[in-house]
Amino acid sequence: MKLYEFAPAPNPRRVRQFLAEKGVEVERIAVDMLGGAHKTPAFRAKSPLAQLPVLELDDGTYLTESIAICRYFEGLHPTPPLFGADLQAQAVIEMWNRRVEFGITAPAIYLLRHTSEILAHLQEQDEGEAARHRQRLLDGLSFLDGELAGREFVSPTGFSVADITAFVGLDFTLHGTFEIPADMTNVKRWYDMMKARPSSSA
Amino acid sequence: MKLYEFAPAPNPRRVRQFLAEKGVEVERIAVDMLGGAHKTPAFRAKSPLAQLPVLELDDGTYLTESIAICRYFEGLHPTPPLFGADLQAQAVIEMWNRRVEFGITAPAIYLLRHTSEILAHLQEQDEGEAARHRQRLLDGLSFLDGELAGREFVSPTGFSVADITAFVGLDFTLHGTFEIPADMTNVKRWYDMMKARPSSSA
Repeated sequence: MKLYEFAPAPNPRRVRQFLAEKGVEVERIAVDMLGGAHKTPAFRAKSPLAQLPVLELDDGTYLTESIAICRYFEGLHPTPPLFGADLQAQAVIEMWNRRVEFGITAPAIYLLRHTSEILAHLQEQDEGEAARHRQRLLDGLSFLDGELAGREFVSPTGFSVADITAFVGLDFTLHGTFEIPADMTNVKRWYDMMKARPSSSA
Repeated sequence: MKLYEFAPAPNPRRVRQFLAEKGVEVERIAVDMLGGAHKTPAFRAKSPLAQLPVLELDDGTYLTESIAICRYFEGLHPTPPLFGADLQAQAVIEMWNRRVEFGITAPAIYLLRHTSEILAHLQEQDEGEAARHRQRLLDGLSFLDGELAGREFVSPTGFSVADITAFVGLDFTLHGTFEIPADMTNVKRWYDMMKARPSSSA
C-alpha cells in the first residue's frame, strides 16, 4: 500500500493522526498540493476529483476520502477501536463524526481557505462566505462546548475518530485569524488535551 | 425502536428507502417539520441540532444522521449488504457515498432550499448561493455521468447505499426548477432505473 499525501493539508493530517493512534506505518508519497501536482492528468487517474489523501491498495485500487481510508485501516488493525467496539458504539461515533465534520471541520477549513493569504491563489476568496463559515464554526463549537461540559471526548463512548476529525479542522483554521472564544472553556480544555497527544504532531 | 421522520424531507427518505431495500419494518412517528415541531425543546432533547430522522433505541439512546442510522440497520440486518460485503468493498462504497453526498446530494438539497417557494419561510434564500449550489450539482452530475458510462451503479461494487444517497438528493431538487441536463444520458438512465425500484416510493 502507498499513501499519497500533502503534509500540511487537513485531510491528509486526519489519516496521519489516525494511523499514529493505531501505531500503523505505511509508505508515504508527498504530492505538492500548493504547486498543483494533485491536478495533473497523471494524479487525476488516481484521484479523479484531485483530492488528497489517496491510498493505493496492492491490487491497484485507489481509495480517496479520509474517513473511508481510516475505516479501511480500522478493519485491518481493529485495536484500539476508533470507530467503535460494537454496533451501537459504531453508530454513535459515526453520528458524532458527522456532527463535528459538518459543524466544525468543514466550516473551519472553508474559513481558512477564504481568509488566508497563503491560500489566496488556490480559489476565489469571498468575505460574505467567510463570515458565514465563521458563524457556522462558532455555532458548532458552542454546541460542542455544551456537550463537553459533561464528558472528556466528542463521543460519549470515549476517544474516537470523531475527536481527530474535529481537532484537525479546528487546528487548521487556528493558523489564520480565528481563535477559540475565551468563554468556550470546555472546547479549550479538549483542544489542549488533543494537542498534547503525540499523534497530533505525527 | 422508533424512527422519527418527516416523510417529504430527503434525509428521512434516505433511511426509508434503505429500510425498504432491506425489507425491514420499524415503528415510525411523524414529526411536522414544516410546522417547526423539530425545533421544540422536547424534540431537541432527542435531536439537539433539530435534525430528522432520529432513531430511538430500546435503551433510550437517540441516533441522528441518516448514514449512521442506515449503518446501524446494516449491522442488525446484513443482507443484502448495502455498505459492502467485505472490507475493501466497504471502503470503496464509503468513498462513493461521500463523493455523491458532497457533489450531488448536498448541493441538490441546498439548491432547492434556496429556490423553492414552499421552503421560503424556512430560511433566508440567496440567489448567489443558489447559483453556486447549482454549479456544484452540475459538476457532480457531470462527473457521475462519466463514471456511469462504464457501469450500472454509483459504486463499481454494485448497488449500494451510495445510489440511495445520490438518488434521494437529486430527486428532491427535481421538485424545483432543476432538470437533469439532456446530454447526461448515463445519469438519466441511472435515475430512471432508481426511480423504478419499488423502494423509491417507500
